[in-house]
Amino acid sequence: MSFDGGFTIWLTGLPCAGKSTIAKLLAERLLNQGRLVEVLDGDVIRQNLSRGLGFTRADRDRNVRRVGFVANLLSRNGVVVIVALVSPYRAIRDEVRATIGHFVEVHVDCLTSECERRDVKGMYKKARAGMLRGFTGVDDPYEFPEHAEITLHTDQETVEESTGRILGALPRLGYGPNEQSSPANAPKVRQRMLELGVWRPE
Amino acid sequence: MSFDGGFTIWLTGLPCAGKSTIAKLLAERLLNQGRLVEVLDGDVIRQNLSRGLGFTRADRDRNVRRVGFVANLLSRNGVVVIVALVSPYRAIRDEVRATIGHFVEVHVDCLTSECERRDVKGMYKKARAGMLRGFTGVDDPYEFPEHAEITLHTDQETVEESTGRILGALPRLGYGPNEQSSPANAPKVRQRMLELGVWRPE
Repeated sequence: MSFDGGFTIWLTGLPCAGKSTIAKLLAERLLNQGRLVEVLDGDVIRQNLSRGLGFTRADRDRNVRRVGFVANLLSRNGVVVIVALVSPYRAIRDEVRATIGHFVEVHVDCLTSECERRDVKGMYKKARAGMLRGFTGVDDPYEFPEHAEITLHTDQETVEESTGRILGALPRLGYGPNEQSSPANAPKVRQRMLELGVWRPE
Repeated sequence: MSFDGGFTIWLTGLPCAGKSTIAKLLAERLLNQGRLVEVLDGDVIRQNLSRGLGFTRADRDRNVRRVGFVANLLSRNGVVVIVALVSPYRAIRDEVRATIGHFVEVHVDCLTSECERRDVKGMYKKARAGMLRGFTGVDDPYEFPEHAEITLHTDQETVEESTGRILGALPRLGYGPNEQSSPANAPKVRQRMLELGVWRPE
């Protein structure tokens, strides 16, 4: 029995900053290192844990707390949990950090103009048109982390580079692969990626 | 890395049938076998995952789905998850069973009259007085499982006996302790029981 090896990598940043894309590649790399991995992505979570919650501050806080609750359950059982969630408010992120303990906050920093240029689902457009209220980066604040373990600059780095920077920092933070990790075989990694919902067969 | 060893023990039954008490003792026994264990208890879940949900059929189903979602994440990472939840509707329990796969349904059967006699939090009393609506066993149905792996009779058995029957059945169901389990030391078990919120220092 081991309670060791688990921790949470919390990707926070503006919509379209690249959090989900990085989470996906990071999950694959960590699985290949032989670790247990789960991805808690904002969109999936809103489907499964938080349907009915809106985007007021109270609802956002509630959503972040739920994700933190689940991340904590997984982390303390040895899972590396990757969270990809706007989570714009500093106080609630710090609360979750305190609960989980083993916590790596990654600020996925990106110029608003660049996020808006990408606008994967046309959300910025809707927010600018007043069709969406309380949209982070448009009419709701994003409080950047003051003590993030890692800050990425996704308007200047490729996804590969950003992911590599996280992986590179983990050993220094005390979260390098441990003796129990052993490289997994490819089919298992593929199977897990499918289960995580972060990989589609090409 | 192992994705093996995890499964979910789902305790379903009337309020005050003894689900939480059995979950608590079962968690301790399984921890002592050297397994990873989490307890998802109805009351704790309503605080952390489902605050705001009521007791209509739709809300109950939503609650059960959320618990199933979390149980699945944990189970597939090697954790033995013990769920203690009234979960009165058959269809949604079967849906969760299908999602999780490795699923042991335990019907915590107990005469309504005996549950009502115990009435730990005075809920039956309130329901009888019409102060609580949609209370399972009073004015909302409990659909007993038709294919439960284990049926307990907590009006005729002690908590020790009920727990022992679950533990005794696990190997036959393919969930015996595996080679990776090794008896944990007492302080670790105590620490985990505290974390699980199912144990208080005496």
